[in-house]
Amino acid sequence: MPTPVYPDLAPITRHLRAMYQSRLLIAAVHHLRVFDILAEAPHSPCDLQARLELRGRPAMVLFPALCAMGMLAYDASGKLQLTELGRHLVRSHQPMLADYLGLESQDPGVLEMVERLRNDGPVSTEEGIAYVKEGAGPSPMDEPEVARTLTLALAGRAQTLAPLVARHLPGGRRHLLDVAGGTGFFTYEWLLLHPEATATVFDRPAVLAVAAEVLERFGRSDRPGAATVRERVQLLPGDMLTDDLPETDLLLAASLFHDWPTETCRHLARRFAGTLRPGGSLWVHDAFLNDTLDGPLAVTDYSAQLFWVTKGRAYSRREYRSWFQEAGLKPSPEAIPTQMDYGLIWARKPR
Amino acid sequence: MPTPVYPDLAPITRHLRAMYQSRLLIAAVHHLRVFDILAEAPHSPCDLQARLELRGRPAMVLFPALCAMGMLAYDASGKLQLTELGRHLVRSHQPMLADYLGLESQDPGVLEMVERLRNDGPVSTEEGIAYVKEGAGPSPMDEPEVARTLTLALAGRAQTLAPLVARHLPGGRRHLLDVAGGTGFFTYEWLLLHPEATATVFDRPAVLAVAAEVLERFGRSDRPGAATVRERVQLLPGDMLTDDLPETDLLLAASLFHDWPTETCRHLARRFAGTLRPGGSLWVHDAFLNDTLDGPLAVTDYSAQLFWVTKGRAYSRREYRSWFQEAGLKPSPEAIPTQMDYGLIWARKPR
Repeated sequence: MPTPVYPDLAPITRHLRAMYQSRLLIAAVHHLRVFDILAEAPHSPCDLQARLELRGRPAMVLFPALCAMGMLAYDASGKLQLTELGRHLVRSHQPMLADYLGLESQDPGVLEMVERLRNDGPVSTEEGIAYVKEGAGPSPMDEPEVARTLTLALAGRAQTLAPLVARHLPGGRRHLLDVAGGTGFFTYEWLLLHPEATATVFDRPAVLAVAAEVLERFGRSDRPGAATVRERVQLLPGDMLTDDLPETDLLLAASLFHDWPTETCRHLARRFAGTLRPGGSLWVHDAFLNDTLDGPLAVTDYSAQLFWVTKGRAYSRREYRSWFQEAGLKPSPEAIPTQMDYGLIWARKPR
Repeated sequence: MPTPVYPDLAPITRHLRAMYQSRLLIAAVHHLRVFDILAEAPHSPCDLQARLELRGRPAMVLFPALCAMGMLAYDASGKLQLTELGRHLVRSHQPMLADYLGLESQDPGVLEMVERLRNDGPVSTEEGIAYVKEGAGPSPMDEPEVARTLTLALAGRAQTLAPLVARHLPGGRRHLLDVAGGTGFFTYEWLLLHPEATATVFDRPAVLAVAAEVLERFGRSDRPGAATVRERVQLLPGDMLTDDLPETDLLLAASLFHDWPTETCRHLARRFAGTLRPGGSLWVHDAFLNDTLDGPLAVTDYSAQLFWVTKGRAYSRREYRSWFQEAGLKPSPEAIPTQMDYGLIWARKPR
């Protein structure tokens, strides 16, 4: 059985997340009055954020989304202005569709989005900030049942994307550290391609219980070399924010940074850079906003979903590169698109 | 001031309604198990509807939407089958994203969609079936405040599309009956183009109170001939389902049929045909499903929104043509796209 090739499943996740564009648009028109404010004058993103009394994260979820929908655009001086379409969402404009959108303004998803935008997350954290552990508090990912459900829910995406990602990582006699590796699919596919390589999958203990089952099945598959994969991988439990990380040649952060606020991302980039051997490289597989922070729509939808369920959002490659540089790494200017609106970027640690 | 030309505002309504595609997809995967059922074997739409225990209207909202999203397709024998993408939503498939979509399965909008699909509308009709009057019961459109809010909410769309539609209707010394005409924008724009024409705007009395204000403003505008429009239009209150309709050369049904179930649509087509003079024509301005009932996505989203708030859905041109023929009219095979994913079709009454 050769390396599997799957069709790009992006349409599935795009339709799944399309509801977030509706929520953001209706919230902006009817509750935050973004269009009425910009009808007065273009605003810098900073000024608009202040005027709306938003924090940075919700602003960086909302503004790129409204640009991706074609309702706002940056003018030559970098200010956000209304597009011709966007003007038709201003209450004083004739004709306007603001009141037509208002018919959906009391939709529960819209109201919840408004609350989360204003509060930079859910008002009650109990049902909100999911799936990320920070500090000494308990993590939902330490509840065996929750960890199992979420890890398996994410397994299909990892399984689909892993063969594509594995092909682009360097091979040979290297060690890969797959941080927050979940099921470990990325690691197993990579080890299969490189018979001399070794790897560590690092995650919470309850997640690694699932990874061990997936690894067991992977090792028993009839793909050539699958049996040796089990012997070359270590499942290492820990807290990536505080625990020592093992030295490595390659570090993979797949769907990782997007769960965290920028300060944590910078902290993680420094930790990851610190554990790389000289000449080693940090690889990020994620969905990236345009560097111009105006789309693409599939990623602004995803960013809104991440905003809803985690402490993070989607970031641009430029944002990643700045964290890498701060951490002493040399970012590659390249970006490799994979599937499902994801791509790969990387940065090297000088020798 | 010449006839105004507006950009196509379709992106606004597409982003507004995109949430309905998410709700339908998640409902189909996680609650109705459409994909697991079709993994057993392709089903005719009828058989699938029976298997899902759905009535005709929700089935004709859901199936075209899943086709438009690329998850289902008709096979050569007219049965619904999974596409390659759709197979990745089957629980037993490897890899699959069904569980990933399951993370959103308890979203309130999804749960409400499931209930409405199963019930062919909201369980409590008090907050549901809006804006349509049928039988002797009261209509929300007879509450002055509700009628005013809804009529004005729909005004922007009518104002944008009216100049485009007016250009395509025949002119001369004809009379136009604009049924459920709302603000009356379609009529006023048409009268402005044809100085010898006359018209009747027919709607509920509370709606016509708003139409009178709009007409007053229209008549006072500086567009050439606007002043004579007021003298050539009659605002006629009534119930289109039961009251006598005035004889006419042209009858316009703009965004009308989509509020009603098919039986009412057939009844309306017969009534409209009956009030046309020989040689006259019935014009429908609406959003149409493909005759193959597999999209387009903008219209399947709209159909879900209509399903949510009215007793209707979007229909295909073929469905309209069958009602026209039953009513003794000769449908034109042509269709004229306008804007906002709408188009114009018409049928002539033999002389």
